[in-house]
Amino acid sequence: MPQMMKAAVFVEKGRIVLDEKPIPDIGPQDALVRITTTTICGTDVHILKGEYPVEKGLTIGHEPVGIIEKLGSGVTGFQEGQRVIAGAITPSGWSHACLCGCGAQDGAGTRHGWKAIGGWKFGNTIDGCQAEYVRVPDAMANLAPIDDAVSDEQVLMCPDIMSTGFAGAETGQIKIGDTVAIFAQGPIGLCATAGAKLMGATRIIAVDTVPARMEMAKRMGADVVVDFRKENPVDAIKCLTDGRGVDVAIEALGTQPTFEAALRVLRPGGVLSSLGVYSTDLKIPLDAFSAGLGDKSIRTSLCPGGKERMRRMLEVVVSGRADLSGLVTHRFQLDQIEEAYDLFANQRDGVLKVAITP
Amino acid sequence: MPQMMKAAVFVEKGRIVLDEKPIPDIGPQDALVRITTTTICGTDVHILKGEYPVEKGLTIGHEPVGIIEKLGSGVTGFQEGQRVIAGAITPSGWSHACLCGCGAQDGAGTRHGWKAIGGWKFGNTIDGCQAEYVRVPDAMANLAPIDDAVSDEQVLMCPDIMSTGFAGAETGQIKIGDTVAIFAQGPIGLCATAGAKLMGATRIIAVDTVPARMEMAKRMGADVVVDFRKENPVDAIKCLTDGRGVDVAIEALGTQPTFEAALRVLRPGGVLSSLGVYSTDLKIPLDAFSAGLGDKSIRTSLCPGGKERMRRMLEVVVSGRADLSGLVTHRFQLDQIEEAYDLFANQRDGVLKVAITP
Amino acid sequence: MPQMMKAAVFVEKGRIVLDEKPIPDIGPQDALVRITTTTICGTDVHILKGEYPVEKGLTIGHEPVGIIEKLGSGVTGFQEGQRVIAGAITPSGWSHACLCGCGAQDGAGTRHGWKAIGGWKFGNTIDGCQAEYVRVPDAMANLAPIDDAVSDEQVLMCPDIMSTGFAGAETGQIKIGDTVAIFAQGPIGLCATAGAKLMGATRIIAVDTVPARMEMAKRMGADVVVDFRKENPVDAIKCLTDGRGVDVAIEALGTQPTFEAALRVLRPGGVLSSLGVYSTDLKIPLDAFSAGLGDKSIRTSLCPGGKERMRRMLEVVVSGRADLSGLVTHRFQLDQIEEAYDLFANQRDGVLKVAITP
Amino acid sequence: MPQMMKAAVFVEKGRIVLDEKPIPDIGPQDALVRITTTTICGTDVHILKGEYPVEKGLTIGHEPVGIIEKLGSGVTGFQEGQRVIAGAITPSGWSHACLCGCGAQDGAGTRHGWKAIGGWKFGNTIDGCQAEYVRVPDAMANLAPIDDAVSDEQVLMCPDIMSTGFAGAETGQIKIGDTVAIFAQGPIGLCATAGAKLMGATRIIAVDTVPARMEMAKRMGADVVVDFRKENPVDAIKCLTDGRGVDVAIEALGTQPTFEAALRVLRPGGVLSSLGVYSTDLKIPLDAFSAGLGDKSIRTSLCPGGKERMRRMLEVVVSGRADLSGLVTHRFQLDQIEEAYDLFANQRDGVLKVAITP
Repeated sequence: MPQMMKAAVFVEKGRIVLDEKPIPDIGPQDALVRITTTTICGTDVHILKGEYPVEKGLTIGHEPVGIIEKLGSGVTGFQEGQRVIAGAITPSGWSHACLCGCGAQDGAGTRHGWKAIGGWKFGNTIDGCQAEYVRVPDAMANLAPIDDAVSDEQVLMCPDIMSTGFAGAETGQIKIGDTVAIFAQGPIGLCATAGAKLMGATRIIAVDTVPARMEMAKRMGADVVVDFRKENPVDAIKCLTDGRGVDVAIEALGTQPTFEAALRVLRPGGVLSSLGVYSTDLKIPLDAFSAGLGDKSIRTSLCPGGKERMRRMLEVVVSGRADLSGLVTHRFQLDQIEEAYDLFANQRDGVLKVAITP
Repeated sequence: MPQMMKAAVFVEKGRIVLDEKPIPDIGPQDALVRITTTTICGTDVHILKGEYPVEKGLTIGHEPVGIIEKLGSGVTGFQEGQRVIAGAITPSGWSHACLCGCGAQDGAGTRHGWKAIGGWKFGNTIDGCQAEYVRVPDAMANLAPIDDAVSDEQVLMCPDIMSTGFAGAETGQIKIGDTVAIFAQGPIGLCATAGAKLMGATRIIAVDTVPARMEMAKRMGADVVVDFRKENPVDAIKCLTDGRGVDVAIEALGTQPTFEAALRVLRPGGVLSSLGVYSTDLKIPLDAFSAGLGDKSIRTSLCPGGKERMRRMLEVVVSGRADLSGLVTHRFQLDQIEEAYDLFANQRDGVLKVAITP
Repeated sequence: MPQMMKAAVFVEKGRIVLDEKPIPDIGPQDALVRITTTTICGTDVHILKGEYPVEKGLTIGHEPVGIIEKLGSGVTGFQEGQRVIAGAITPSGWSHACLCGCGAQDGAGTRHGWKAIGGWKFGNTIDGCQAEYVRVPDAMANLAPIDDAVSDEQVLMCPDIMSTGFAGAETGQIKIGDTVAIFAQGPIGLCATAGAKLMGATRIIAVDTVPARMEMAKRMGADVVVDFRKENPVDAIKCLTDGRGVDVAIEALGTQPTFEAALRVLRPGGVLSSLGVYSTDLKIPLDAFSAGLGDKSIRTSLCPGGKERMRRMLEVVVSGRADLSGLVTHRFQLDQIEEAYDLFANQRDGVLKVAITP
Repeated sequence: MPQMMKAAVFVEKGRIVLDEKPIPDIGPQDALVRITTTTICGTDVHILKGEYPVEKGLTIGHEPVGIIEKLGSGVTGFQEGQRVIAGAITPSGWSHACLCGCGAQDGAGTRHGWKAIGGWKFGNTIDGCQAEYVRVPDAMANLAPIDDAVSDEQVLMCPDIMSTGFAGAETGQIKIGDTVAIFAQGPIGLCATAGAKLMGATRIIAVDTVPARMEMAKRMGADVVVDFRKENPVDAIKCLTDGRGVDVAIEALGTQPTFEAALRVLRPGGVLSSLGVYSTDLKIPLDAFSAGLGDKSIRTSLCPGGKERMRRMLEVVVSGRADLSGLVTHRFQLDQIEEAYDLFANQRDGVLKVAITP
């Protein structure tokens, strides 16, 4: 009889519950990681609400911090007992997607046929990490050891929102001296703000309306924060840039208004770097798109994963170049995860991110 | 009293007529070029139909081949009597747009305020070249001498459709071994097909329905031509690529169906390189966009201009790497330009491009 | 008792001999490939001459074409009996080098400590493929199926010289309209010439002196061939480019004179793309380097490997975009390999590449 | 009779003296700028020592801060009385070099024939700005207005060493999470250190031996400073990186030992970004170059110029992202410039940069 563990499981639309499941078996290329800290992501809330379909019974969660409990027979270069993270996205390394530099799309399409929706596995196509244990596939490509000098909570953002937010800045190809606008300052937008600063943007305009998020945006590097309830952000950004527009606009929410505003504030030749997970068709207004003549581009990024990416994220934390641990506003035991979902999904009590400890 | 010349002038929606106008004056940085060959572009037809607004009385046309008649006092490095082309887009060289590598957007926004629609000047914001003479602004940045070995007609595509079509391939960052789909095989799509071949795409799938264009697509480098009236091009391309999709899709028409199909055929991580001049808002279907999770990008390109770009286009012609002179299917005198517009706008008689000689 | 096979083995400086060895065992991630065709590379001659040290008893050879004989227990996605190639360089997929896009350096440094010399394994750090069988490590990242439409000999250049030569063009970032000089037209230089053409260079100047190679250079795409025994190639290229210099110079021999000449013919801002395996220190003359003020760069490339790279090389062959099978000038049985080395090492009888068939 | 001004003039090897010269005439595309602050560069010391040849009688200096005194008849977009800087390198905008994105090489080769040494004009091929007035050529491409909020001294580094040092980081293509070594912490090395930090390097290792420079290196962003007199910097950096090496090494001195050490500390696939002005041939040791098999590159950068570049440098200052004004350690009147040269050339009194005010 297998040993059992606790795990947060998708039951049906509206219900993610803590349940008992067997501790996962692992194959030769896998690792079993005992989770010491994890968190809940906005995408998990999409799953909870039934907006993003997953199989019933799946363990949710894709942001693991933990200890290697067991290594597959084929895994070298790691030791049991090491403290590690793995990225939300777990590239195999050997796929065509990986070998052509697009590791985040490894496995894309295998679940939904040709309609690829990215290479996200944990808590999407395989069991995730809101549990006592998680199986990490392709462990040699995905485990990243954590420096003793930093705590679980300090590195908890690395697997997903930090890698995603920074990717927004990187895909935007931000250069020294750029002006950048970031639409929405939830956890991912805040990380995009930090990423824009880290890459040398000299003018960072953040857009939100929640006071705590606007305040946090400044701590992350925003020079100006526009409150979209007080003024039209497109007009405000036009004004702030003397009509020039921004070099890069980062969309970090996943809605038509933010997407459209991000397109409108671009200078000719600018880049809309899109991070949002959309749930509707999008409209590109003709004028915002300069009728196709403005040398604009729209680029989407899925969270880059793999151990090399995680190593870099950890370096940012260890070096103190960015400190994202302030994003954890609430802490729960795994036993309280339903309560944590309730708080997080309803954005109560100024929550940004929660830390869950089994 | 100024000397007079003939010029094709926009009078009102539906009417471009041959008229008499003074030969242009030139400033110190300009050149006066006597046109020996020019052509009509699809964009000119948009102007004719009133879909793209220009001032009444403007001389139309942006594809000049001719002889330097006179140089401004500040122009060095050229001689009167030299045979030259200038690009459809005429960057100044000294603007912020030029100096940050986005020369095609030089002057963008000066006409329509903040709603930039690209840096196109000839036949848009200044008098164009469907005339006996044209003033070329910023001549030192824009004149490109033509090798004696090639005819006017051989280089007539360089100023616009060749530079634009090739930009579709370049902005798509086509690599050796890529699979590329090109939607619509009008003059620009045909040049994009030639550009894709020139950059090393090994599988080129062209989409059109007009037999002569489908035939020409093969001459330009298409390996397969899909007739969109006979089969759904998205299904056909899925099938041709075993469900993988294409690395790069080039949109060369400017319509919702081609834009959407181009997005749908992309592999995860693929690039939609958009060349079309759109006249309506666009819709991005959620699934075609992988909900923002597919690492896809949409990039638009306006025709790159300037003498260095033109030099490269001329090199392609002189070296014989691509032969686009076959695109000229009909020839007219400038006196017959109204007839030429009628033929071209209505796509009669299998017309691809016309050559106009004053 | 293990089954035995024939293999070309390094014995000592000056001696590579055909010997009997056990057919390799394979691990769970490996494949055993029965070689149907392979070849000898210039690097193998360096090994033969003792200029490049390998362990005694090692099987030489890194260009395998063959049939999958057996798959490791962990390998999916391939079938025994499939005809495949693997690249000369065999990235694991999961290393830091691979995950940061530098797969050719996977394993670099593990053999010689910190003095990394690239991630080349076959016939360098593990047994190679001048044998009846070869073990392919990390098979899922490295096996590439061959289309039935093409012969072994047609794809024999893919694993090494084609991938390397094309990398010379790619690392040089050749653009449409570039002028490119390629120094030396041995097998790799010829592939670099083909690669330059495939990427859109419009002026290709090849340098060699052997008539058969100069002739082959033209077939591969050279517009001009400079015979360095008849004229100083630097002067000749200066003259051919009206003093401007070339955008990209590819060094494909590995000597001081070719390296230095490649640097001298660059325009300001140009790129020296270096493919040669050097055996001496190099000198950068101050004037050729513009004292460091010329925005020049020197970039080296090791042969890119992995199944995605191989897929692209195979696509080039299958599509007919480049035909390199003409490079095979001589054919031998594996039994005759010592004779083949003798011919190839001494460049007798106009040899370019040999095909070896067990 | 022309009005006269004071200017620092090269007389002969060893002598730059303050002299009287006519205030420059300007042409239609030029501006006359009244210098309010300027400085002396290491390159000027090369000129002084006769190591870098310029014409006798030339006014030296290429780092102008001042007020527009007069604009040429063809110059628009600026007003007399505006406070401006111009870059050390003054691209025209219209040259082939500019139009292909290599503006720093505009004019390269015009002075020394084909042996191009970059597009540097001020104090090299035309009169410079260690004077009361300077003629700025191609003013529309080169003048950048200064924000009132910052002082002359705060922006004095923008025209040259900041643009150069940052270019070292940019050409190295530093990415978030990179480890970077910078050899020599003179003014340019210090700016490279600041640039590396600004682009997201998380581990910055600076090498020098002068205590004040080592201290300043830490203020600019270095995490570790290696004193090359106390330990071998190659060994130290190997050790600091656990044998891995650095992603990017920046050479900021222009000598064989620093060049060679920079090459030796690179990881496989790393980039040596070279800023130094060399005065001897360079040697590339075979092992440091991995025999050409290490996917390493060596890239040189000349100071990028033009008004868009200057705008970005000014933005960095105005935004406070980097504060380089601390580099000015000594201040002189123009009348004292010979004294300033003496101090600076001999690196007395811990001098980093001097401010010269006419």
